[in-house]
Amino acid sequence: MKVATHQLRCTECGARIAGSAVNSIFRCPGCNGLYDVVYPWSSTPYGDTPDSGSNLPNVSALRWLWQERRTSTLAIDQSGVWRYRDLFPILEDLDNVVTLREGNTPLYDLPRASKALGLDSIQAKHQGMNPTGSFKDTGMTAALSVAKERGFEWVACASTGNTSAAMAAYAARAGLRSIVFIPEGKIAWGKLSQSMDYGALTVQLRTDFDGCVRVLTDLVTRFPIYLLNSVNPYRLEGQKTPAFELLEQLEWQVPEHIIVPGGNLANGSALAKGFSEMHHLGLIARVPKVSIIQAEGANPLYRTLCENNGEELIPVKANTRATAIRIGNPASWRKALRALRTTGGWCEQVSEQEIALAKAEIGFEGIGCEPASAVTLAGLKKLVAQGKIGREERVVLVLTGHTLKDSTYTIDYHRGELFTAEESAEISPADQLLHTALRKPPIVLEPDTDTVFRELESQMKLVHA
Amino acid sequence: MKVATHQLRCTECGARIAGSAVNSIFRCPGCNGLYDVVYPWSSTPYGDTPDSGSNLPNVSALRWLWQERRTSTLAIDQSGVWRYRDLFPILEDLDNVVTLREGNTPLYDLPRASKALGLDSIQAKHQGMNPTGSFKDTGMTAALSVAKERGFEWVACASTGNTSAAMAAYAARAGLRSIVFIPEGKIAWGKLSQSMDYGALTVQLRTDFDGCVRVLTDLVTRFPIYLLNSVNPYRLEGQKTPAFELLEQLEWQVPEHIIVPGGNLANGSALAKGFSEMHHLGLIARVPKVSIIQAEGANPLYRTLCENNGEELIPVKANTRATAIRIGNPASWRKALRALRTTGGWCEQVSEQEIALAKAEIGFEGIGCEPASAVTLAGLKKLVAQGKIGREERVVLVLTGHTLKDSTYTIDYHRGELFTAEESAEISPADQLLHTALRKPPIVLEPDTDTVFRELESQMKLVHA
Repeated sequence: MKVATHQLRCTECGARIAGSAVNSIFRCPGCNGLYDVVYPWSSTPYGDTPDSGSNLPNVSALRWLWQERRTSTLAIDQSGVWRYRDLFPILEDLDNVVTLREGNTPLYDLPRASKALGLDSIQAKHQGMNPTGSFKDTGMTAALSVAKERGFEWVACASTGNTSAAMAAYAARAGLRSIVFIPEGKIAWGKLSQSMDYGALTVQLRTDFDGCVRVLTDLVTRFPIYLLNSVNPYRLEGQKTPAFELLEQLEWQVPEHIIVPGGNLANGSALAKGFSEMHHLGLIARVPKVSIIQAEGANPLYRTLCENNGEELIPVKANTRATAIRIGNPASWRKALRALRTTGGWCEQVSEQEIALAKAEIGFEGIGCEPASAVTLAGLKKLVAQGKIGREERVVLVLTGHTLKDSTYTIDYHRGELFTAEESAEISPADQLLHTALRKPPIVLEPDTDTVFRELESQMKLVHA
Repeated sequence: MKVATHQLRCTECGARIAGSAVNSIFRCPGCNGLYDVVYPWSSTPYGDTPDSGSNLPNVSALRWLWQERRTSTLAIDQSGVWRYRDLFPILEDLDNVVTLREGNTPLYDLPRASKALGLDSIQAKHQGMNPTGSFKDTGMTAALSVAKERGFEWVACASTGNTSAAMAAYAARAGLRSIVFIPEGKIAWGKLSQSMDYGALTVQLRTDFDGCVRVLTDLVTRFPIYLLNSVNPYRLEGQKTPAFELLEQLEWQVPEHIIVPGGNLANGSALAKGFSEMHHLGLIARVPKVSIIQAEGANPLYRTLCENNGEELIPVKANTRATAIRIGNPASWRKALRALRTTGGWCEQVSEQEIALAKAEIGFEGIGCEPASAVTLAGLKKLVAQGKIGREERVVLVLTGHTLKDSTYTIDYHRGELFTAEESAEISPADQLLHTALRKPPIVLEPDTDTVFRELESQMKLVHA
């Protein structure tokens, strides 16, 4: 089944090249810029020669088609990414789709957070409910399908976390082999458990992380190995589809704000691309503001905006317990900047203590997430306090990873081992009270019903107080 | 919105009681038997006075309705459990539904396992893709909704694993408080991380597990606390719905075999009830054989069948690394026996080494699961070897938990630390070869492209050999 064509367009100099011509490092040979995937109908700023009128996909037909596909038993229709394939025609042949039925993630109300912040509606789009437990699946299904179509037998990335887990799973599904590069001696076994489970080969190189990226770049240039780091623009085409799914879930009523965690900065960019394309096609009347929240200890975008208004990236030595966004030199910072500027969103930073509290609050709503996801709620609090978000404005937080991705963090929090005494002293009295109510270290009791019930009664008073 | 009524029927003596009359220990006052939930249209052996003809739900209307609900944006329609609410009318008012959009789990082909076993079709219904990472969610959404409808503010269970995680999440979602009872000193922090995250209170009692159950039973009898251990029959009503969803995914073509892990033995029973009801209603022309696989170290049902033909349970001191099925005295053993006998399935046991291999094989298909889930593939191998399952018979394995539920097991496996030398020596030479191909401990290399590529070439030969 043949589908439409696409091009790659340099985000820096605007040069275009056929998608099929680029199979290794995904950087513009002229200016080293990253690529966007663009289509004949793409909108500015995501493609500089938009067609008008007649060549645009028919909007009401698309809505109907996407809804009908929900009732289909075909894998590409059941996938919450490929269901929207009309807006990312990156394959020549849809038989090459590699899917684990990603997407279809829930949109949850957060009634307690809404009440606490005095907002009418806060919702969470939980991308951690994807097959490997993170939003990376939506991008990997797209990029792995391209790798398969182009005949690669090997794929690779430098990562120890969610990216390698997603890559390994989709590669295994496609019957391809995958390699994860990490610096020697930096093995976090827990984070590697998934990629080992899905059969990836982990190679420790006797160098640092930059050295790994150098070897990887050289390798994919000289040998038939497909690069799946975040510079691969096809990943972003998959990662834009939660924007479509979200709007469908909201019956095409556009929320005012989307808030995403900022690590390597491709996710907010991808979602903004999705919203922008929907707007250009007339599926929605306006785009939501996309805001990006970073951890204070890994805040290169925030610093860059504060210190030089986004002129040149200021890399930082990243340090945060929110490991999924512990990135000091993000590849997609210019794309993220564009996302902020075209949608009108903000960039904020939050402390480790604020992240921990927000994670516990999201957990207490029965949802749960990995620490990096919780920066969204922590950042929202700041934006509300700054008067940037009003009561009646609807907010959607994008939760990027499942709580099971980092059990150790949760355990340390509830055991009271996440912060030193000095760090705890920095927490405001109001937040201290919240922490006390939310922390749930196990209690020890005599095996006697009345003793147990008395304890429960006192707990109940604590909660109702 | 009012819906139909139901009754509870004792699985031992057949006595019936109104569902609303039982709110604490869920055992027949006459004979201590467990209850089934039955409806006016229920079939034997799940209800002794089935109505005929006119009172049965209209089958083609149901199929149409279930399909159409997939296109709805309502939470109760998006839930893969409540979508089938017509066949478990347990609530008076559907506004009481507590949902995390559970169900909707993928059905994956296992092409490599099929080829290796010489079967035409092995598929995996992955219940680990539920919101908290296990099949327990499908049951908890049902039972928690009942708790909410009946006005409880507290719910409780004795469990440290998947049950407590699911209970805590749904309780939080409902705005109820949840308590997990465990014996003192037996804290497995990792397994508690989720229930702490979702805000459950963990109470360690100075007694053993049986002592915990005694206190819990007394507590729910004397105080308004709702019991969510597996004796709660409403959990099984939710857990039967994956049978409906599976058949819908298979376009109502009934597979020959369903294979489930056997721990507390409620899951296979629930699915068999679902198939039996579908058969009775005319949704399917026959039921699949439901087989139950236990770990050798936690095999009370297997022993009971071998040693006294199911007359009386032989409890065992359970010991297996597949912790989700480490249960020596399963509450629902009689229900499981009925499931095996009414569907014609078998009970098998598998060794720790067989479980580990099967888990690695499922991982290598890009799917992954917790160790307990892998007993299904290990058991299937035995059933095929015994000639019980033929080439053209279609098999569906029910994977019950996500691979992230037990990262430590995966890590130990790939580090080669799962088995002692003696245990490894028990592995057959053919399986040893498979283990060698599947185990992926990290390798260390110089940061040089040619070195890396030579290593990859040798790996490739290993795979293709």
